Amino acid sequence: MDFTPSATSREWLARLQDFLARYVLPHNAAWQGDAAKGVYPAFMQDLKDLAREEGLWNLCLPMLAEGEPGTRLSNLDYAPLAEAMGRIPWSAEVFNCSAPDSGNMELLQRHATPVQRAMWLVPLLEGEIRSAFAMSEPDVASSDPRNLQTEVRREDGDLVVHGRKWFITGAAHPNCRLIIAMCRNAGADAGASHGAHSLVLVPLDTPGVEVVRNIPIMQHASLDGHCEIVFRAARVPEANLLGGWGEGFALAQSRLGPGRIHHCMRTIGQCELALELACDRALERRAFGTALAQQANVQEWIALSRLEVDQARLLVLRTAWALDNGIPAQQLRSDIAAIKVVAARLQVRVVDRAMQVFGAMGLSPDTPLAWLWTWGRALRFMDGPDEVHLRTIARCEFDKARERGGSSADYFTTPEQMAQEPRVR
Amino acid sequence: MDFTPSATSREWLARLQDFLARYVLPHNAAWQGDAAKGVYPAFMQDLKDLAREEGLWNLCLPMLAEGEPGTRLSNLDYAPLAEAMGRIPWSAEVFNCSAPDSGNMELLQRHATPVQRAMWLVPLLEGEIRSAFAMSEPDVASSDPRNLQTEVRREDGDLVVHGRKWFITGAAHPNCRLIIAMCRNAGADAGASHGAHSLVLVPLDTPGVEVVRNIPIMQHASLDGHCEIVFRAARVPEANLLGGWGEGFALAQSRLGPGRIHHCMRTIGQCELALELACDRALERRAFGTALAQQANVQEWIALSRLEVDQARLLVLRTAWALDNGIPAQQLRSDIAAIKVVAARLQVRVVDRAMQVFGAMGLSPDTPLAWLWTWGRALRFMDGPDEVHLRTIARCEFDKARERGGSSADYFTTPEQMAQEPRVR
Amino acid sequence: MDFTPSATSREWLARLQDFLARYVLPHNAAWQGDAAKGVYPAFMQDLKDLAREEGLWNLCLPMLAEGEPGTRLSNLDYAPLAEAMGRIPWSAEVFNCSAPDSGNMELLQRHATPVQRAMWLVPLLEGEIRSAFAMSEPDVASSDPRNLQTEVRREDGDLVVHGRKWFITGAAHPNCRLIIAMCRNAGADAGASHGAHSLVLVPLDTPGVEVVRNIPIMQHASLDGHCEIVFRAARVPEANLLGGWGEGFALAQSRLGPGRIHHCMRTIGQCELALELACDRALERRAFGTALAQQANVQEWIALSRLEVDQARLLVLRTAWALDNGIPAQQLRSDIAAIKVVAARLQVRVVDRAMQVFGAMGLSPDTPLAWLWTWGRALRFMDGPDEVHLRTIARCEFDKARERGGSSADYFTTPEQMAQEPRVR
Amino acid sequence: MDFTPSATSREWLARLQDFLARYVLPHNAAWQGDAAKGVYPAFMQDLKDLAREEGLWNLCLPMLAEGEPGTRLSNLDYAPLAEAMGRIPWSAEVFNCSAPDSGNMELLQRHATPVQRAMWLVPLLEGEIRSAFAMSEPDVASSDPRNLQTEVRREDGDLVVHGRKWFITGAAHPNCRLIIAMCRNAGADAGASHGAHSLVLVPLDTPGVEVVRNIPIMQHASLDGHCEIVFRAARVPEANLLGGWGEGFALAQSRLGPGRIHHCMRTIGQCELALELACDRALERRAFGTALAQQANVQEWIALSRLEVDQARLLVLRTAWALDNGIPAQQLRSDIAAIKVVAARLQVRVVDRAMQVFGAMGLSPDTPLAWLWTWGRALRFMDGPDEVHLRTIARCEFDKARERGGSSADYFTTPEQMAQEPRVR
Repeated sequence: MDFTPSATSREWLARLQDFLARYVLPHNAAWQGDAAKGVYPAFMQDLKDLAREEGLWNLCLPMLAEGEPGTRLSNLDYAPLAEAMGRIPWSAEVFNCSAPDSGNMELLQRHATPVQRAMWLVPLLEGEIRSAFAMSEPDVASSDPRNLQTEVRREDGDLVVHGRKWFITGAAHPNCRLIIAMCRNAGADAGASHGAHSLVLVPLDTPGVEVVRNIPIMQHASLDGHCEIVFRAARVPEANLLGGWGEGFALAQSRLGPGRIHHCMRTIGQCELALELACDRALERRAFGTALAQQANVQEWIALSRLEVDQARLLVLRTAWALDNGIPAQQLRSDIAAIKVVAARLQVRVVDRAMQVFGAMGLSPDTPLAWLWTWGRALRFMDGPDEVHLRTIARCEFDKARERGGSSADYFTTPEQMAQEPRVR
Repeated sequence: MDFTPSATSREWLARLQDFLARYVLPHNAAWQGDAAKGVYPAFMQDLKDLAREEGLWNLCLPMLAEGEPGTRLSNLDYAPLAEAMGRIPWSAEVFNCSAPDSGNMELLQRHATPVQRAMWLVPLLEGEIRSAFAMSEPDVASSDPRNLQTEVRREDGDLVVHGRKWFITGAAHPNCRLIIAMCRNAGADAGASHGAHSLVLVPLDTPGVEVVRNIPIMQHASLDGHCEIVFRAARVPEANLLGGWGEGFALAQSRLGPGRIHHCMRTIGQCELALELACDRALERRAFGTALAQQANVQEWIALSRLEVDQARLLVLRTAWALDNGIPAQQLRSDIAAIKVVAARLQVRVVDRAMQVFGAMGLSPDTPLAWLWTWGRALRFMDGPDEVHLRTIARCEFDKARERGGSSADYFTTPEQMAQEPRVR
Repeated sequence: MDFTPSATSREWLARLQDFLARYVLPHNAAWQGDAAKGVYPAFMQDLKDLAREEGLWNLCLPMLAEGEPGTRLSNLDYAPLAEAMGRIPWSAEVFNCSAPDSGNMELLQRHATPVQRAMWLVPLLEGEIRSAFAMSEPDVASSDPRNLQTEVRREDGDLVVHGRKWFITGAAHPNCRLIIAMCRNAGADAGASHGAHSLVLVPLDTPGVEVVRNIPIMQHASLDGHCEIVFRAARVPEANLLGGWGEGFALAQSRLGPGRIHHCMRTIGQCELALELACDRALERRAFGTALAQQANVQEWIALSRLEVDQARLLVLRTAWALDNGIPAQQLRSDIAAIKVVAARLQVRVVDRAMQVFGAMGLSPDTPLAWLWTWGRALRFMDGPDEVHLRTIARCEFDKARERGGSSADYFTTPEQMAQEPRVR
Repeated sequence: MDFTPSATSREWLARLQDFLARYVLPHNAAWQGDAAKGVYPAFMQDLKDLAREEGLWNLCLPMLAEGEPGTRLSNLDYAPLAEAMGRIPWSAEVFNCSAPDSGNMELLQRHATPVQRAMWLVPLLEGEIRSAFAMSEPDVASSDPRNLQTEVRREDGDLVVHGRKWFITGAAHPNCRLIIAMCRNAGADAGASHGAHSLVLVPLDTPGVEVVRNIPIMQHASLDGHCEIVFRAARVPEANLLGGWGEGFALAQSRLGPGRIHHCMRTIGQCELALELACDRALERRAFGTALAQQANVQEWIALSRLEVDQARLLVLRTAWALDNGIPAQQLRSDIAAIKVVAARLQVRVVDRAMQVFGAMGLSPDTPLAWLWTWGRALRFMDGPDEVHLRTIARCEFDKARERGGSSADYFTTPEQMAQEPRVR
């Protein structure tokens, strides 16, 4: 066991941090200003060009084979980079590492036909277009995929998509061109999960596709959008099927692991930022005759945040390492569920404490805290609510318990057993 | 970064687990039965002999130099062994790894004179005697060492110790022969910490030393004891000074790190056991028509315990690794404080959930849970209350913040800044 | 609405508090000393005689009709008396108000035949004997009464009881003579609840009845006992049936309300005591240069305990008032469940904070805190685990929701509705 | 003690609830739509006229003397009305009961000169104008009034106000005409509190007064506004002093009690609404094969919310009763602090649970939950952060402890005391 980050990872991190400090952070306020007005910042293209020139591009894309696009960074190596980007959430786009594009690109890389690759993957890799992944639906508890109702049927060599999705991230971005839609196959058994869904590549300008609204999340309408989208018998060619008919669920699952690592590490980065903000404020602010930093309750908030963040980071890094190293599926499934719950709850808690250090200023848009706190709350639903993941973890534990065969009863000590006097040999 | 345990560690662990399963666990109920009657178990010596024969002896003792006693196990390698022993708390004695002996042996190894070594270290290494370390006092908040009042004065070539200590672990063991007493030097400034204390080797049978009582902890009087001890002008030769006059505080500090790792890993082991017990019970017990394992609240308890235990273990292991690898003192000091808080609180929480799965049986002595829960509560005071450690962590964070120089303000976004339109190059 | 206690209640409270201060508290340490040795205190009879002389006797027994035994105190009037007694838990016996006798006496008063009254109620009212109520069983989740397995069958004009009970409070008291046993009727449908159980008056010295052990609760074996009892075809005359055949469940339910008020108010009293202890300690103890009372974290513990205790007391008092004033059953059922959960959790929390103020001394038997904390934990199972009561409360809420007919949707604001411009008239 | 609401209170409540259901709730969506666009709703004046016609006007204003404006409702009687209004936060304005107008009107009623009354109180009572109360400042921890820096100096028969305030509620309302500004007297000792401040009536259109911005709170810019206001040597006549020179702090304190009751009851109303929303959703939504209402974790959320809301309401009502009935100041000060902490934290907790029942919809603006949750967070700062109030409560407890004189030590049981055998008489 060795807790030293690899040289590769440290080197990339240093380059990234330098770029963030020099070019991105100084644009943060202006970006927020534009975003508040709903305007896509004019300087974004310049930043993207600069990042690409410096080789900080498509960092999270694995290299599947020699000559293919992507970096050689493992999930474990990339993790600290995600953490660094998390501190300025819009910075991921600068490096072409935005969600859900990163996951979509990996999906296309693995499963797209040559035509699909040329049409969608290449411009995504170039940062020319953005994309969305449409899963959640307003009318059902979407965390249980058997509930999904948006339907795809085959008709005259076309795929016809019909239904309503919401909280579709990225669909309001001015460059968004593609929706990967998770659909129930027409005629599939109600209540079935595996084999019953397909993924369809739906261009955003397909007739019958309407982005109804950009839903504000906790009173914040983001620039990229979390959108409600209606598909009214939207028709695309059969060639727009991604992977096989009925493989939708399996493909969606395969997106999960790396994406989960990325967003959990972004959370860690945001928590570190909140902790830094809290420390600086506590040192500077005085009430009732002493600096807040001298007051035992504030000290406890700081300390608890430190030890919680450190623990969470280690769990995410171990999961990244497990993904990279072929750990058995049961443990991996449990860990990937665990980091989701840990990270989302952590963000609410750590940012809440930081806000309390700030006083009313923490409510204002003058610090990142108001957004970070409400976003932390939203994270408790992203990729499914906490409860779904806790259930997964529990089921893995129960499976392990069944394998052990109830052996913990060996630790019981009944009055009868306690009265015995056994011999060692 | 690599999360694979070393081959050495895995190998020792396998041997230890095998021994525990074959010899120790089958004696657990009988041990509890004897302990409830206050009787030192007759079979203990046999178990110790057997463990020693199998080479499972003094496992936690570092080898300071070639030829010296001790193993080659690093803190990181030893950690899983401590976890395994934690599941049967009295098992540590079988392997001569009990607290506070392990810390005392390391202290004597490093600082004892040849005479002191012969007199105390050798029989401790042989498992012939036990020892205690006397720090806490009833009349002051002992977590602040400046408060300690037990005094040592030099008189006629002797050291005279006067004062009252309590919660002195191990002093009720039938083989206990030695107390290492932390004393304030007579004449030292009130309120001073560094340089004001000395460690004195006080044989338990010294006239004036009285073990007043074995204080029950949460209604449990342990066999080894957590004792109240009065020193009434107890007189020992000057040769019984351990280390230099005034070095007591520094030496006591040096004991901290490895001992902390051990007891935190024992906690982890106990939490794992509680989790196993809870899982097995939840699978077997039914209420309101379904197995508890099917009920969402029970599932959440199991899942939360799993993810909290995993995070805590990683933090302790990283701290063990840091101890072994010369990590900067500021980070190490913070981590050693952090694992104390994390582990103690974890035990209360995880065991509490397990008890709730068990229902009233969890209150009884038939499972390890009642002891584990109350012991978890006691851990929140052992080595100082949580609050002292949280304060340490916070102060380390504030030091880091001062080094950063308040840079988090770069993330503020005032209305004026938001209205700017900066250029990238 | 009026929050002033009645004159009656205040007057009785003053007399009780005076008696407690003058006679009971001064005997507390001696009582604890005897109890630790398992000895019934010699002075108890004197205290009982004295209390009876002063008219402080059977305080919690309602007067069902003119001339019947009992006081005129309502549940609301009695509540503060229960709070006062709670501070010295063994004091209830001094006033013949111990659980489960108080509930058993009320049950006998309402449902016993004249012969049963003469045989059991009269000596209970005189304080000559003690009694127990046997419900919980080791082999099933007893909080779901459909699970109970102890069986009663009618045979040759006798009732034959067979089964195993545990955690039967009071059965170890030297004066205990009677067990009221909750039994499943032989031949009743498995899984049935109403109509399937009967209450049987089983003298403790009935052949076949064995008190197997006094189960320590969280390592504390109480003087009165929480006992495991085996009924091996124990045979009593049919005249020992209490109430009708099959009425056991309904009668057991009727015991619930007042008993719940009593024990919740005792909890409140214990929490107040813990808070007083914490305040006094915080004022007197110093660490790191200031009194604990000056430290913000300690202040928060004190303040949170104050506001939680006050809220809990109000909820219990309102429930007592509701019991006295014929509040609708749905609300009452929910409230009686609520106070159980609130009180038990409160005790763990408030006492935990007080212990933390005390440091290690809080673990010792020198203060009431160790017992109070572990007892608080046990309260989370007494009368059924928290989860059962939370379920009851939730079901009452869902019933109310069904009655409202989903009207909360009137508060939704869809984009379409938000675009309307309605007229007022 | 009697928990029945008075007939007066029930009667007013019925009339108010009827009005809310018939006229206000049907306008809620349209109001939200206008507010989202920053437009003051056209129908508001009609609603106000209608409410006034029906006598539902100035409900929270006490009648100080016969013939004076105001109602006869006590704080306790008014409390349920505040709870009812809380469900639709903007409804208070319909009944001329908005904060901070209600507190400002009471202040003017008690302390304004005849000229001030004519100029400000009369149009406020008529609902013709709105007002603000300016306390918090961006540059200091304003919860400690000794920190306030906005200064008033007397100059040439004028009062000159200079400084910066923020989070000034109501200042963005189109009808706002008056700011009551809390100022430090020029020349007052730095760090002084009592006697060092004055209240100045500053018309909003005074030269030098600038409403710099309406600060969004947790990403929500309210229609009434929480504004940042700069006073640049704003000059008003000396006749605009409210109360005496140096009485500012005492007057501001006197506003506290009733206002606190109102806003805490509004919180209770909002929590009840959140609980209703959660119940209805849990009954209707299914996941993993059952309705959410059947799942044990959801049941626990519902039940905990119920019992927490009930407890909080009782505490607020008792405080209202105490305000009405001359309870001693120490207890009252503690209670008024307590309800602030209880209510604010309750709202975050109860609404959080409701959101979790809703899934992602809870993040959207389609339900009241997103606003309720973020507003609950803001409440933890309104009227001072939790920590200030917890400190107040703790200090009251310590005062009580000092009065008791450390008597809790009578409950200690040392080994020596336990060995005694005392006699009763």
